Amino acid sequence: MSTISEHRTIRRYSGRDIAPELLSRLLEEAGRTQTMGNLQLYSVVVTRSAEGKAALSPLHFAQPMVTEAAVVLTVCADFRRTSRWAECRRATPGYDNALSCLNAMTDALLYTQTLSIVAEREGLGVCFLGTTIYQPLSIIKALRLPRLVFPVATLTMGWPAEEPPLSDRLPVGAYVHEEVYHDPTEADIDAYYGAKEALEVNREFVRINGKETLAQVFTDLRYTRKDNEAMSRTLIEALRHQGFIE
Amino acid sequence: MSTISEHRTIRRYSGRDIAPELLSRLLEEAGRTQTMGNLQLYSVVVTRSAEGKAALSPLHFAQPMVTEAAVVLTVCADFRRTSRWAECRRATPGYDNALSCLNAMTDALLYTQTLSIVAEREGLGVCFLGTTIYQPLSIIKALRLPRLVFPVATLTMGWPAEEPPLSDRLPVGAYVHEEVYHDPTEADIDAYYGAKEALEVNREFVRINGKETLAQVFTDLRYTRKDNEAMSRTLIEALRHQGFIE
Repeated sequence: MSTISEHRTIRRYSGRDIAPELLSRLLEEAGRTQTMGNLQLYSVVVTRSAEGKAALSPLHFAQPMVTEAAVVLTVCADFRRTSRWAECRRATPGYDNALSCLNAMTDALLYTQTLSIVAEREGLGVCFLGTTIYQPLSIIKALRLPRLVFPVATLTMGWPAEEPPLSDRLPVGAYVHEEVYHDPTEADIDAYYGAKEALEVNREFVRINGKETLAQVFTDLRYTRKDNEAMSRTLIEALRHQGFIE
Repeated sequence: MSTISEHRTIRRYSGRDIAPELLSRLLEEAGRTQTMGNLQLYSVVVTRSAEGKAALSPLHFAQPMVTEAAVVLTVCADFRRTSRWAECRRATPGYDNALSCLNAMTDALLYTQTLSIVAEREGLGVCFLGTTIYQPLSIIKALRLPRLVFPVATLTMGWPAEEPPLSDRLPVGAYVHEEVYHDPTEADIDAYYGAKEALEVNREFVRINGKETLAQVFTDLRYTRKDNEAMSRTLIEALRHQGFIE
């Protein structure tokens, strides 16, 4: 299982297809993932067609992975199938609420990570698109997701055409707390982020963006309050549209 | 990586400890998990002490795994550390909103699943406690989680003292959709759930609960509208308390 310690995001793919049998086997294997009450509160929409990828592309801000990957997999929190099951069995479902939404999102995200790991084990390259929750209503329309189905993760997947270096990670002490949470002091922050900030690639990143610190690149350019607040509104609107909140 | 296809939840543990070095190595290895902007928007609180486990136990409805496992790991969505980093670097964070909350929850849940997989690879047994989001405010207090930190998953972990059978799963066609979502017909529901409903363990489960169908056990007893709606209110209250929503 060295694939886990060698994980890198793959954004460039060869033109080679993924055999449907292989993909189906991986989608099935990932179905072993732990799940609430063994209900498997997720669905995966597989986009293979050029038309389907072209339709999704602008919804992911035209990142080239969407059209260049062999397949695009949209993993959705899904309480629709379980609710349909109940309705077909003289049972009355009650899953149109925030708790059920988070339960299904949890199942979907755990599934997504297992799927990524088994795909990488086969030599496939995967890129997780965080843009899925930026314009969820457009994705909901494109994939015709019914009520109680919500897209939470997109993986682009294909045979790798690049071998990027391993990216850095924080020291384990930055995110592990013994017994209770220990709020980081300024000295802790220096210890946790110093190595990252010293990397030449990150220093260059600060320079080309005309900023003073790496953190400013994140707060002022990559993930700004203005964008976050605007997308929070569209996220909540989409959750309401899908019937998960009032 | 046969561990993935052989996953089973382990609820009974031997009294044997998990060496801190092993646990630390697994927590670090899981840190390779894909993460938004390489920010690692999660934290893990490790509960090893008997006092800590005793304090968590009622918050997980006294499920015996909490006190019997070698360690209890509470994985949290965490925008606090990143925000502290920004504040220490003349940057102004803007992550007190719903989108950032879901971003951090996503990171935390992907991390949780990798951690489960690497632990199982070592022969450890893991149980995912869905109860984490049932009474989040109590867990927040017990673990002293500050603003912008939210518990999303708890794993109990220890050396297995049982080898339960593999549980059933839905056929892959139940959760995979080609190109667009295909709403299940009544015939689809029969095909997806028929094998599950026919299992002797599930027929027994229906009988002892005095219900007509397996789905009714879920809707009327295990995950009821009344409970879901009450816990949705406490979930939203906790999200507000932690500063993620207004």
